[in-house]
Amino acid sequence: MSTTVAGWHAVEARLAAGGVLSIHLDAGRQDRRAQRVRDLARHAQVELVECSGAELDVLADGVRHQGVVAVFAAPVAASVDEALAGVGCPLVLILDGVEDPRNLGACLRSADGAGAHCVIVPRRRAAGLTEVARKTAAGAADSVPLITVSNLVRCMDDLKQRGLWLIGLADTHGASLYQADLRRPAALVLGNEGQGLRRLTAEHCDELVSLPMRGAVSSLNVSVATGIALYEAGRQRTMGVE
Amino acid sequence: MSTTVAGWHAVEARLAAGGVLSIHLDAGRQDRRAQRVRDLARHAQVELVECSGAELDVLADGVRHQGVVAVFAAPVAASVDEALAGVGCPLVLILDGVEDPRNLGACLRSADGAGAHCVIVPRRRAAGLTEVARKTAAGAADSVPLITVSNLVRCMDDLKQRGLWLIGLADTHGASLYQADLRRPAALVLGNEGQGLRRLTAEHCDELVSLPMRGAVSSLNVSVATGIALYEAGRQRTMGVE
Repeated sequence: MSTTVAGWHAVEARLAAGGVLSIHLDAGRQDRRAQRVRDLARHAQVELVECSGAELDVLADGVRHQGVVAVFAAPVAASVDEALAGVGCPLVLILDGVEDPRNLGACLRSADGAGAHCVIVPRRRAAGLTEVARKTAAGAADSVPLITVSNLVRCMDDLKQRGLWLIGLADTHGASLYQADLRRPAALVLGNEGQGLRRLTAEHCDELVSLPMRGAVSSLNVSVATGIALYEAGRQRTMGVE
Repeated sequence: MSTTVAGWHAVEARLAAGGVLSIHLDAGRQDRRAQRVRDLARHAQVELVECSGAELDVLADGVRHQGVVAVFAAPVAASVDEALAGVGCPLVLILDGVEDPRNLGACLRSADGAGAHCVIVPRRRAAGLTEVARKTAAGAADSVPLITVSNLVRCMDDLKQRGLWLIGLADTHGASLYQADLRRPAALVLGNEGQGLRRLTAEHCDELVSLPMRGAVSSLNVSVATGIALYEAGRQRTMGVE
């Protein structure tokens, strides 16, 4: 199975990540950005196809491509083992029962953007990777391993054994997300849209934190909360770097 | 016009913010949390109505109420003048052409949670406060002033005159959001779902920044990006406090 990413930024990121089968570039583009992609493709020994804008439109399937599309091998449904193999400081997202496929898709997109290594969801009572989820994920469904587990608590115990710190995001809890140390190997655990974290899931976290709520509402949309938490992890991990 | 918020946290926040007309409390609740709300209502000289769970269900209109609902006067459509009156260090969100009412609702909810003082949208080519937007906002549509302007560029110039620093979030730009100083009076400017910031809007920003994208996708969902940017402003403003 293969799939595509489009646009300069996505193609370059994908080239850096590996697994690219071919690059398709607007033959008319002779500017620096295009030349850079030609160079990168040559260095990576990836087939480069010069083609027309119309051909790129078809390949990109409705996504804004800016003149460049990469075809790559889609990752197989990975296990936690595969997803974390060789990863020094894992960042994992656990979604306990997110039901809206749009929320699942937006969470995958944020996980990809924040550099998370995999997303874990329970098999039952949770949205699957439907077409709506894939579309909302804007390509991240093919770049971030989505791992379905039949026993979430057992999976959480396994992650603890691997040295990950399990941080649950609860609606109301004294400690702030910003007090948590997210630089260590960690899994962020979020609950579903209505009820938040289930009791059993919360009990299996090492630490519960919450987002500061400074107004009238008591919680954020689950995909927004996920994005904020993952990007705070990214910020802490690269502090002083970017 | 009046509206409601439900749940301990939201009711207490609303009491602190003012404008509450009445508090409706489960008459059977005698615990500390309920007693605290009774005390707060007395001090605020707000009418307290002891009632049944069924009555609260009706008042809360489907929202999880935990035994308490506050009825308050909905803010009138405010001007920027009204929204920023007496505010020491404004935090404003500008959404330039967000088209999906669910995204507008999620942005309002994040603006409320992050403590933003108002949200500004252009009159044309943008989602309005539809029922879908209100529902997604989970109450924030009645707590954060949503200000519609016919000329966004003129409004941005006006905000600059007031001493606000205008920070646009662009998909691809060298500087990271985390390099921006968000502790000063600021407006965060986000574009629409497909095209991002319009050229004219971007040109009227004092600074353009982007979110680090560490994976294959080149941007996040606009409501997630909004939440991350607003909460980063909140983090910087309270750093060391929470």
